[in-house]
Amino acid sequence: MADAVGERDASAHTPCLYLDPGVAVERYEQLRAAFADTDSYYAVKANPEPRLIRRLVRAGAFFDVASPAEIALCLAEGADPSRLSYGNTVKKASDIRHAYRSGVRLFVFDSQDELLKLAEHAPGSAVFCRLLASSAGAQWPLSGKFGCTPEMAVDLLTQAPRLGLRPVGVSFHVGSQQLDPGRWEPSVATAAWVSGELAAASIELTMLNVGGGFPVEYTSPVPPIERYADAIAAAVGRHFGTQPRLATEPGRYVAAVAGVLRTEVVLVSRKTFDDDTRWVYLDVGRFGGLAETEGEAIRYRLVTPHDGRPDGAVVLAGPTCDSVDILYQRAEYRLPLALRQGDVVDILAAGAYTTTYASVGFNGFPPLPTVCIGDDE
Amino acid sequence: MADAVGERDASAHTPCLYLDPGVAVERYEQLRAAFADTDSYYAVKANPEPRLIRRLVRAGAFFDVASPAEIALCLAEGADPSRLSYGNTVKKASDIRHAYRSGVRLFVFDSQDELLKLAEHAPGSAVFCRLLASSAGAQWPLSGKFGCTPEMAVDLLTQAPRLGLRPVGVSFHVGSQQLDPGRWEPSVATAAWVSGELAAASIELTMLNVGGGFPVEYTSPVPPIERYADAIAAAVGRHFGTQPRLATEPGRYVAAVAGVLRTEVVLVSRKTFDDDTRWVYLDVGRFGGLAETEGEAIRYRLVTPHDGRPDGAVVLAGPTCDSVDILYQRAEYRLPLALRQGDVVDILAAGAYTTTYASVGFNGFPPLPTVCIGDDE
Repeated sequence: MADAVGERDASAHTPCLYLDPGVAVERYEQLRAAFADTDSYYAVKANPEPRLIRRLVRAGAFFDVASPAEIALCLAEGADPSRLSYGNTVKKASDIRHAYRSGVRLFVFDSQDELLKLAEHAPGSAVFCRLLASSAGAQWPLSGKFGCTPEMAVDLLTQAPRLGLRPVGVSFHVGSQQLDPGRWEPSVATAAWVSGELAAASIELTMLNVGGGFPVEYTSPVPPIERYADAIAAAVGRHFGTQPRLATEPGRYVAAVAGVLRTEVVLVSRKTFDDDTRWVYLDVGRFGGLAETEGEAIRYRLVTPHDGRPDGAVVLAGPTCDSVDILYQRAEYRLPLALRQGDVVDILAAGAYTTTYASVGFNGFPPLPTVCIGDDE
Repeated sequence: MADAVGERDASAHTPCLYLDPGVAVERYEQLRAAFADTDSYYAVKANPEPRLIRRLVRAGAFFDVASPAEIALCLAEGADPSRLSYGNTVKKASDIRHAYRSGVRLFVFDSQDELLKLAEHAPGSAVFCRLLASSAGAQWPLSGKFGCTPEMAVDLLTQAPRLGLRPVGVSFHVGSQQLDPGRWEPSVATAAWVSGELAAASIELTMLNVGGGFPVEYTSPVPPIERYADAIAAAVGRHFGTQPRLATEPGRYVAAVAGVLRTEVVLVSRKTFDDDTRWVYLDVGRFGGLAETEGEAIRYRLVTPHDGRPDGAVVLAGPTCDSVDILYQRAEYRLPLALRQGDVVDILAAGAYTTTYASVGFNGFPPLPTVCIGDDE
């Protein structure tokens, strides 16, 4: 991908995300091959670039959507509404109505009030109940905000048929960029318990949505996707009697490596005469698309024109007048001593969770644009 | 302001920032009265709403700008370029050229390379050198990213005349929402030392930019602006021989109380049967404009239709499928037990550092719009 961007674009306006939708489709197909007999819902929020969505539609993908705008996007790019799952557990009644009118018939909830909203505004739909799950081991954790206890899930799923909804399964998410393939098993076991309780009430749950979280290689190696698929299949085999059909929600795994964020060095400076640490300011920062550097959680790999030459310690920061707009201060990044203002720096595997996080114009800097590269089938 | 929004708008689309530019002008004039004989540069980044800028131009304001877009905005609304200070210490060469061509002749720097860029692309301009400053006591701290040591400031300011630039003073910033009026004095003392060193080299610095940071009442009382003006004037009197002309850079102080962010409750839920803490999800969150709730730093005051009735503990969160999109989990917020989905919740003093932080469309949610209210003179 870094090569694909090429030298010819080195003088193009920065910052800019160069995205190759074909690479994302390859990644989706790789994941689909690893997870046999699984419905893989691409998490549109990771990167909603229309040309990427169009390519995934043609590849037969399913889509996990979070809002009316994401639904409209998928349908505009040719997706059938039966391929969409409205996975956000927090939805306005008007948004549920919009989804239902658009043909969406699969929804996720995790609370009493959301279940009642779905019953009223999406009658007859299939529903998943999301479980609280530990996201220990994830670099961008998810615990706390979404999901309910297994006991509450049993209660709510048991109510669903009486409310005119069709309970199909439970879902959970073990946290994004999850490095440990073994982290799914505790939630699989909990899901099996919930399914067993429902079966005892003569309600058969046929599906299990194991979420996303499959990691991408930024600066450190990660286990291959097959390891995750095998660990999850084994866990399901151990804990479920009747095997449910699996669903996954990959976002980062599909889109990240399809993108390179091309940036420019705005300034290299020192704060004192007696400290060798340089401050390197890029023309993109936490409010221009690199939101996931919050807490230095996601540590991107950087490519400079001087790689391989002598380097030294740096603090990396964005271009705004906001002191929290610092990318890496504790992560001990090193960059070539030859690095100068005006140099291009490529941020690799930046295709997921970047463009849509960008602010509308903090400090007057425009949002991060996308340029699609590669074959446009 | 909460009253000014009024019941008639209760059914309007949310989220939305209701902004009264007249209130912002009153705040600017109140600050200008407290700081006699001071040039007060409104920090455009706090809220760049064009109608607010236009009103401030008519009130004779100065403007602190961070980018070409902010410069273009101020000029379009009628500001004279002599009223602009390009306060961002991290600027592309092309952006300096743009500013210079636009007539801007006042720039801030904090490093050798930035000084050389200014010499090349903004010849003859007046320059401030920014000092590192402690932001202890600030709720949104600024230390580290901006400024240099006093020794480096002396070196750089001494170079300036030889490079064809006009050194006029030093600047510093003690952190946004600074609760302690005494926090300016250490930096004033350092600035006086720098000015003394320059005077010994026959370079007279005539100005001192004491930055912004003047706080706003969110959930806790803050000292009145006069207390800050008096403390700073007294510190300058103690440390400077020849009194410099002062400059300030208020942003939050001017814009915050001019705005009310009207939101809607999307969901009220519990995670377990045995925990009384409710999760309250609003239709705006950290990626929709409330970026300053990061680390629960800025704690806004909320107004609900049920205030005064029995309340209970809540966790407040935004509407996106991102678990860091939580507003307050440790801050022990309490809201009425009667609160339900669909209820309007007004977030007070939300006119600063909200709209421009909003993402272009994370999760497919549109950016935060502004509706101006009050007299449009």
